[in-house]
Amino acid sequence: MAIVEVSITPLGTESPSVSQYVADCHKVLKSYPQIHSQLTPMGTILEGELSQILKAIEEMHEMPFRNNAKRVSTLIKIDDRRDRKGTMKGKIESVLSKME
Amino acid sequence: MAIVEVSITPLGTESPSVSQYVADCHKVLKSYPQIHSQLTPMGTILEGELSQILKAIEEMHEMPFRNNAKRVSTLIKIDDRRDRKGTMKGKIESVLSKME
Amino acid sequence: MAIVEVSITPLGTESPSVSQYVADCHKVLKSYPQIHSQLTPMGTILEGELSQILKAIEEMHEMPFRNNAKRVSTLIKIDDRRDRKGTMKGKIESVLSKME
Amino acid sequence: MAIVEVSITPLGTESPSVSQYVADCHKVLKSYPQIHSQLTPMGTILEGELSQILKAIEEMHEMPFRNNAKRVSTLIKIDDRRDRKGTMKGKIESVLSKME
Repeated sequence: MAIVEVSITPLGTESPSVSQYVADCHKVLKSYPQIHSQLTPMGTILEGELSQILKAIEEMHEMPFRNNAKRVSTLIKIDDRRDRKGTMKGKIESVLSKME
Repeated sequence: MAIVEVSITPLGTESPSVSQYVADCHKVLKSYPQIHSQLTPMGTILEGELSQILKAIEEMHEMPFRNNAKRVSTLIKIDDRRDRKGTMKGKIESVLSKME
Repeated sequence: MAIVEVSITPLGTESPSVSQYVADCHKVLKSYPQIHSQLTPMGTILEGELSQILKAIEEMHEMPFRNNAKRVSTLIKIDDRRDRKGTMKGKIESVLSKME
Repeated sequence: MAIVEVSITPLGTESPSVSQYVADCHKVLKSYPQIHSQLTPMGTILEGELSQILKAIEEMHEMPFRNNAKRVSTLIKIDDRRDRKGTMKGKIESVLSKME
């Protein structure tokens, strides 16, 4: 189980608004019910099996091209912990418990 | 107003758990009441005036060294939009409205 | 053809030096002769077919675990341009020509 | 002394070519002779005193707005090591020596 953040940004679109592209990328995740996802103001966080997540991201990265983007910049950050099961919920709780 | 994601990671700590370091970095934000912050499973998202956010991040980046880290890797992603006011809430809503 | 930067960082390794891990990750690239690579002080830049690069990165990301790391943080940045062929060399030359 | 990679990307620029913007960002570095810089196909790597580098990056990040960009996405990765002096050259040599 890995936790992966991804943000996909088309360049050279006429408008600086890219939310329609982001929404379309997100739709790809409907085909991956085993991947948990959380939308944040800066990207999407995915939790699941790493190779499946990378497969989903590769498909998400194609979406802006289908919507006529000519260049896409995609940032992926993998947090892969194997000494114990890492989850999005567990990571947040672990930090919060230490902030009291 | 900018929206900025930051994640601060100490390297060469004995344990792969870094939540105590993250919690301590977060405490710095108490001195910056004008900056809105949101903790995510992969980092912290900050909303506010860019130069003030960068000042806060520089201070957060120092925290692991005070806790004896010898090396710190910090990732910062700035989203700065000036044709209209961008907010964390507005960005999420804009994507969600296009996913229906 | 895409250009992709990757940096792979093991966490909780006791020593803050991670160059041995990086060197081992790099060895994976010997099995991918079609991918051009360039080592930088902050990561490795790869040029080639995107799905093959992602396959190589997935394999590189496994290396620190084989060397007993318990947690690995991997950052991937894809620059994928399809209106014309983008190359590492071409990108540098394009910037340099505009700096004169 | 820190080593910092930065990439500055304007969004909504009509053309997917952004090298002119990158070249203009780079010109800012002329005012910072103490910062060593290296242009890579994916960004610029800076070596120097951290707070000065962050000051330079803040100024670089303003450049695309002066050139009429409406939104700028800037990615900054700091590698700050304090148990010994880290340099761009030293990091590369350390990895290369372990690849033989």
